[in-house]
Parts: sequence; C-alpha cells; structure tokens
Amino acid sequence: MRKRTPAKRRSGCPISFTLDTFGDKWALLIIRDLMFKGKRNYGEFLQSEEGIATNILSDRLKRLEEVGIVLKEVDPDNRRKFVYRLADKGVDLLPLLLEMILWGSKHDPKTEAPKEFIRRLERDREGVLRELRKRLRRS
Amino acid sequence: MRKRTPAKRRSGCPISFTLDTFGDKWALLIIRDLMFKGKRNYGEFLQSEEGIATNILSDRLKRLEEVGIVLKEVDPDNRRKFVYRLADKGVDLLPLLLEMILWGSKHDPKTEAPKEFIRRLERDREGVLRELRKRLRRS
Repeated sequence: MRKRTPAKRRSGCPISFTLDTFGDKWALLIIRDLMFKGKRNYGEFLQSEEGIATNILSDRLKRLEEVGIVLKEVDPDNRRKFVYRLADKGVDLLPLLLEMILWGSKHDPKTEAPKEFIRRLERDREGVLRELRKRLRRS
Repeated sequence: MRKRTPAKRRSGCPISFTLDTFGDKWALLIIRDLMFKGKRNYGEFLQSEEGIATNILSDRLKRLEEVGIVLKEVDPDNRRKFVYRLADKGVDLLPLLLEMILWGSKHDPKTEAPKEFIRRLERDREGVLRELRKRLRRS
C-alpha cells in the first residue's frame, strides 16, 4: 500500500486480487464510510470512531483513487476542496461489505449493528442490494 | 495481529469487528486455502503461490485459532503433527469469500478464476453456498 507503483502480482487467484486491490482494513473503513455513512470529504473520514491517522487516510484515499474504486472531484460548494465518491468498481464491493456486516453482527456479542437492518438483510438480501446500489449510483 | 492480547475495541461497527477479527490479507488467504483448496497443514499453507513467510503463517494460524475461526487438532495419521480445519465461525465466512471471488474475477483482466464456477455462482449463489457449507462441515 505504501508505494505508488502497483504491488507485484502474486497469483491469479481472485481472492488474492481483491485483497491486494482494496488494500487493508483502513481502506475498507473508508469504503464503508462512503457506502453507508454518507461521508464525502477528508474531514469527515478523519472523524470516524476507529481513529484513522491523517497519513494513513491520505495514502489510502490516493490508492483507492488509483485503482479506480473511488472518484475524487472538486467540491461544487467550495472549489478549493475535494469530495470523494464510489466509482462503479467501488459500488461493486457492496455485497462484500454486506457479508462483513452479517458476519460481524452474528459473531460480535457487543455489536452495534442496527437490528432492524440485519433482519431485513437476512430476509431480503437482493432487495437491500438493489436499493443501496440505486442510492449509491445516484449520489 | 502481533500481540496475543485482543486488539483494543475501536467501535461497535460490524465491518470494523469483522476486519479486526480475521485480521489481514494473509489470514484470509489461509482461510481460502482451508475453504477451497483442501489444505490442512502448515507445509501445505506454506506452498501457496502468494509466498507467505513462515513467521507470518505461524502468527496468523495462532491468531485464527484464538479467535475461534480455525481448529487445531492432532493429525490422526501422524500424532506428532497438527492439522487445521475451519470452525463453524470460519465456515460462516464462506459468503464473504464468495463475494471476494466474484469481485476479483469481474475486475481482474488476468483472473485465473475458473469460468464455470463463476457462472454457477452468479446463477445459483444459494445452491453453491449450500453445497460448499455441507462439504466444509463434513471435513
């Protein structure tokens, strides 16, 4: 993740490719913030509970932009600032993050995942996917 | 991942919990090997294409055992050796890994994911899940 050149390809395995592309935990937490929390800018990402460090945040945002998961655009409300949003390649990570939510909420006795959302997700995965995809593509 | 004491809890977010529990890329590649490649012992994990280092492998195996994702058992064929298999908590990661396969095979132009499997997975996700779960619970 530290170098700007792409990581050496280690295998043709799709799981390995996915892990190498989105990177690490911090990158996925940024994707989560874009996907479910409506966050769009540097300052908002920085405020997440997990306490991401500024250097890690800017590195991961750059990396996510380079691999085409995130788009960086001039903020229409303040042309000296930038806003981020998910590219289609990032929206495609939605089913993966939904599975993380399901696994985490099942195995964490102290989970704060909203119960109503989990129930809906378990009952109507396809419906939840459709709705969230539509919302993300519009934003 | 390095310490034996559990990591400090950073938030109640189920995605964050999932990422903190299975750890990093290397842990997930071990889970992949147990799930899809029929690997069971240290020497087999070591031979994976991605080239995991011995110290990382033993650290991640220990960690996966501690968090209850992997079970370590005496090898019935050689009582001085150990074999590993997925606990139910690890089998529960199956949908997440299937989504990684789908995303990776879609976005990697050089993917080596078996086309026939991907097609089946796209057409009959529930059927593939059922079949693989059954096989893993039996092993």
